[in-house]
Amino acid sequence: MSEVGIIAYGTSPFTKEDHKIESMLHKSTNDLFKKNPDINKNKIDAVLVSTNNNSKYLSPVLSEMAGIQPKIAHSIESLCNSGTNSIVSAFSYISSGLADMVLVTGAERYDSPGQILEWDNSRGEFKHPIFWASIFSKSYKREYGISDEQLAIVSVKNHKQAKENPNALSKKTYTVEDVMNSKKLTDDLRLLNCSRPCTGSASILLASKEVAEKYTDMPIWITGIGQKTTSAGFTKNTSLTSMESTTIAGQSALKMSNRNISEIDVAELHDAFSVCEPMILESLGFTNPGEGINMSQKLHEESNFMINPRGGLIGSGHPLGATGISQTIEIVQQLQKTAESRQTNNPKTGLVHNMSAAATSSTVLVLEK
Amino acid sequence: MSEVGIIAYGTSPFTKEDHKIESMLHKSTNDLFKKNPDINKNKIDAVLVSTNNNSKYLSPVLSEMAGIQPKIAHSIESLCNSGTNSIVSAFSYISSGLADMVLVTGAERYDSPGQILEWDNSRGEFKHPIFWASIFSKSYKREYGISDEQLAIVSVKNHKQAKENPNALSKKTYTVEDVMNSKKLTDDLRLLNCSRPCTGSASILLASKEVAEKYTDMPIWITGIGQKTTSAGFTKNTSLTSMESTTIAGQSALKMSNRNISEIDVAELHDAFSVCEPMILESLGFTNPGEGINMSQKLHEESNFMINPRGGLIGSGHPLGATGISQTIEIVQQLQKTAESRQTNNPKTGLVHNMSAAATSSTVLVLEK
Repeated sequence: MSEVGIIAYGTSPFTKEDHKIESMLHKSTNDLFKKNPDINKNKIDAVLVSTNNNSKYLSPVLSEMAGIQPKIAHSIESLCNSGTNSIVSAFSYISSGLADMVLVTGAERYDSPGQILEWDNSRGEFKHPIFWASIFSKSYKREYGISDEQLAIVSVKNHKQAKENPNALSKKTYTVEDVMNSKKLTDDLRLLNCSRPCTGSASILLASKEVAEKYTDMPIWITGIGQKTTSAGFTKNTSLTSMESTTIAGQSALKMSNRNISEIDVAELHDAFSVCEPMILESLGFTNPGEGINMSQKLHEESNFMINPRGGLIGSGHPLGATGISQTIEIVQQLQKTAESRQTNNPKTGLVHNMSAAATSSTVLVLEK
Repeated sequence: MSEVGIIAYGTSPFTKEDHKIESMLHKSTNDLFKKNPDINKNKIDAVLVSTNNNSKYLSPVLSEMAGIQPKIAHSIESLCNSGTNSIVSAFSYISSGLADMVLVTGAERYDSPGQILEWDNSRGEFKHPIFWASIFSKSYKREYGISDEQLAIVSVKNHKQAKENPNALSKKTYTVEDVMNSKKLTDDLRLLNCSRPCTGSASILLASKEVAEKYTDMPIWITGIGQKTTSAGFTKNTSLTSMESTTIAGQSALKMSNRNISEIDVAELHDAFSVCEPMILESLGFTNPGEGINMSQKLHEESNFMINPRGGLIGSGHPLGATGISQTIEIVQQLQKTAESRQTNNPKTGLVHNMSAAATSSTVLVLEK
């Protein structure tokens, strides 16, 4: 399999603003080219757009706006992990030899139609993800004797970390008490336990080894890819306290990269809700079942940004199609040591975890410099 | 680049019926597995859904309905050539080594939101493709001194051929007079010059050489791939009498397969409107500029099914996301000599041409046995 590197990135601030999807796509793409004026647009073989927006033909539209005439141009959608699905697709276009350089741009509006999965009747009256997040929270707390106050730590930590991320939606920090006093959505979920949908965009440029080394002396290599879809409907999940698709995707990605989990120095994990962070930490093997919340708490106390340095989805906001790409950019910055006040200590190997619909599907990427 | 073969297919009838998109996706997938009961679903690494439908997470939904738990699962959209974009993506997943077996299913409803490209203001008051089809028709007729009656031949031929396709939307044949007397849509376009949106679904299963040869002694190999996006907006087209993206995609596909156009024995071309067939014949180099309509006429007189044997889009109907896959299935059947009353004479090399939005993007595939 050919080596594939990330050679450039661009992003927009994550906001609640009302912009057209085409403008949002162009915003991070434009940022990428402004940061990297040497990139020859004529050599971009593919433009992949990651979004849940209902507008069509967005890849040719973005290409025209950006002055690119690619061979391959299409949109990719898989709800909340559309972004990493697009990155894996870009990897395959390059690795197969069909492309040498691929632009991946994700964008979403605050009113994304991807927030609700109409098809899943098993969610009962709540079509919104707070349904499954509540059940996960209740089950997880009961199984491991965890309190609401303990879960709130994830929100406190990730909002704190987001404060160091200039593009994050959240600009505030909160205490455990703030989280406990925020609006009650269900018996097991309060507003500050939730990531918030928002408007945002993120772009990365991937290239074959030969091309990557022409443009930069610090490409970040995608050395591991793991993906798994177990179902689409929530009630098909085999466990309510762990994430099977995440475990399988994590094992595959680590195997491909010839790494084990203890070698991961920094990670972006899909904390759509507070309970997700400990569940993912455990499902990936960062810690034992039931001990994820202790790990989040310890990292918080030590002001260690190892997990979700950009503030996760809870702090950064969650523009669905842009999220996986934004997570990946954070790990690229961490490995390139350009993450400024979010920088972790000399990381060599990073991990991205991105999932959809109650972890019925997951993607895990391993990145290395 | 690893060899990638098509080892199975399934389809639904193309109709005007009102079915849910999920049911439509399942229909052709189910047909594929019924025709090929030996396929081990546990070995399917990726499920790609091709559609313009606004429903989300359709690949995991289809996977759950079909009893598949793939690694890779996402939707792909690029208006009318979503189908061949999905096939090329499947090719890249296999060729890169990320997957050994990939299911590609396309489906659309008669009321597809992909029929109108809101973004393209250059289309004036007509958002519908009849706008660009009228301009192409007027320009082509003027440039080469072609009459409306001559263009009508494409519709007559392709409806006649569709009569031999049990899944086609059209069940009738028409005379040139019928076409000329059909409802006038614009100065240069009548109803029978147009393909009609419809409800339909088509599935193919692709596999690496090793896996393909386990399942069938007659895999059809994808030996050439060419794609090009020149723009998204109609007015960026450099010519109104030829299709630049088609020419470039065709040349790339032929080069990759080491073939020239005279070696193509049978082809499915994207005749969204009558004028498209001669323009595509010329842009691909099947014949000289201005002579495409003579070629269609001659084939019609000889009852030679070489071009658009299943009846093209005009005869088969045009369920956007399924079209490119249905075209590909037709060429597979032709090469496997299972096309029954549509069978052309001993074809060895076939071609699929699929395009979007006034040929602002095109895909060309070369298939061989």
